[in-house]
Amino acid sequence: MSDLPQSVQINEEGPREGFQFEKGPIATSRKVELIDALSETGLNHIQTVSFVDPRRVPGMADAEEVAARFARKPGIAYTGLWLNEKGLERAIACGRLDLTGTISLTASEPFLQRNQNRTLADNIAMQHNMMRIYKANGVLVERGSIMAAFGCNFAGDISIGAVLDIAEQIVDIADEHDIDLQVLSLADTMAWATPLSIKRVVGAVRDRFPLLDIALHLHDTRGMGIANAHAGLEMGVGIFDSAVAGLGGCPFAAHRGAAGNVCTEDLVFMCEEMGIDTGVDLTALIEAARLAEDIVGHALPGSVKMGGPLTALRDRIG
Amino acid sequence: MSDLPQSVQINEEGPREGFQFEKGPIATSRKVELIDALSETGLNHIQTVSFVDPRRVPGMADAEEVAARFARKPGIAYTGLWLNEKGLERAIACGRLDLTGTISLTASEPFLQRNQNRTLADNIAMQHNMMRIYKANGVLVERGSIMAAFGCNFAGDISIGAVLDIAEQIVDIADEHDIDLQVLSLADTMAWATPLSIKRVVGAVRDRFPLLDIALHLHDTRGMGIANAHAGLEMGVGIFDSAVAGLGGCPFAAHRGAAGNVCTEDLVFMCEEMGIDTGVDLTALIEAARLAEDIVGHALPGSVKMGGPLTALRDRIG
Repeated sequence: MSDLPQSVQINEEGPREGFQFEKGPIATSRKVELIDALSETGLNHIQTVSFVDPRRVPGMADAEEVAARFARKPGIAYTGLWLNEKGLERAIACGRLDLTGTISLTASEPFLQRNQNRTLADNIAMQHNMMRIYKANGVLVERGSIMAAFGCNFAGDISIGAVLDIAEQIVDIADEHDIDLQVLSLADTMAWATPLSIKRVVGAVRDRFPLLDIALHLHDTRGMGIANAHAGLEMGVGIFDSAVAGLGGCPFAAHRGAAGNVCTEDLVFMCEEMGIDTGVDLTALIEAARLAEDIVGHALPGSVKMGGPLTALRDRIG
Repeated sequence: MSDLPQSVQINEEGPREGFQFEKGPIATSRKVELIDALSETGLNHIQTVSFVDPRRVPGMADAEEVAARFARKPGIAYTGLWLNEKGLERAIACGRLDLTGTISLTASEPFLQRNQNRTLADNIAMQHNMMRIYKANGVLVERGSIMAAFGCNFAGDISIGAVLDIAEQIVDIADEHDIDLQVLSLADTMAWATPLSIKRVVGAVRDRFPLLDIALHLHDTRGMGIANAHAGLEMGVGIFDSAVAGLGGCPFAAHRGAAGNVCTEDLVFMCEEMGIDTGVDLTALIEAARLAEDIVGHALPGSVKMGGPLTALRDRIG
């Protein structure tokens, strides 16, 4: 019926996604509190901050301070995000994070132009330059990432051929820098994907690049996040980005509307109920999700933190 | 890859689900306004009211008045819900609805006892009695329904064998009353289902009763609603209950928490984007969803009404 994996790797992006987008201001100590709570859930990969222009993203102006203050727990990779050389240099200088590099291209050139004022050629040149910085600083690069892989608000539908072309460009960049690429991440940056397009695109990428593990980065703006994650699972995808409580997206409303990443605890609930191991303690994660709501001061979209896990009900029934 | 149907039948339950649960009070005129708006969306099956004890469900005390006042549009079945003979008699007396009967049993006896203070034997006896009332009043019965088919807060997990046993009992009741059963509805009443259990249960029911169409009634309390609907679609399910804006469930919070039925416009969005015809105008439906929010006075959980459809973006790109 499907290629469901036995276990999945979840990359928690809530602190970065959420505190980047919330209007705030949110005290540094509270950001640290959430990261520390997430460290107690079994999650082993937590994206903590982004190194971006503080004039454009004031919520991340304290990235270095957050990175300096959370308590590192063994076995957990604490990562960060950057979009250009300057951000990468800040991440390296901060010296507190587990840095891994990504070769990041975008399947939609109009999106690239609108959001980063770059052409695809500019972006490829920048990726080459960043590979040199990674190498010079001993930063491992194992992952490629394709933004807007399922559709774009400025370019419309993205063809599977366009996604495969961009994937080839990523592989070419990796080859040129002797990078042993392991993972190709497909991002539904603007929430255009349906379960059907997830299956089609993942299937085509899997066929073309059978040796690469596929990861999915799914935004939930149109409520398809969990269904898209499930479609990925059925195609054998075993790596997902997600955000506790559904942190992220536009903070103007206390509901699912303009949503961020798929919600971590809802994803964990689905996986564990289907017998797919996440390594995460759902009860502890729900506590972290409630903490996230307390920190941002409004309701966040995740469902399982309200509906509750089934394990407690089963225990009560006995 | 799947048995996706070419089209689906959506049974809109928002007015009944929502106004039954909202703390209210909501003016009768506003309930009528929502039903009239839904009549302009292309939905052809709208459950408008429930005939239940007004002491227990004060929000439905005006059921007869609502039924008397909305504008009937040709081609639309306007239905109602009842749980016992008394409710059915009210529905018949009201004379304004398109009545169809359902043989309704529950896969969990503890749930039945807690919620309706009946044993399974009591419930079967009542179903027989209602079949006689249906026949005496010329009410067509084509549908069977199994509540708690995927799990129960009081009984825990429900085995596939138990679901098949209850389905057999429904078929036996139908046979005894010369009813030509067409549809078997599986209800995830307490939101225990995952896409995997949807596929397993639907698959088993489909194998045992190949001539029956399967319908799904999915609650979204744990955020699995759309993923479960998609799993149903992949198993060839072509009939879904849903609620505009995600109306229903517990009204205490303006978010997805204790949720009602899967959201109609999110379901329509998914189907249409995957090439499955719903007959529904998504833009008009989103307007109705916003009206529903205005009527209840708080945010409702549906996502597409916030994220927006993709058709408008495609049109703008040209």
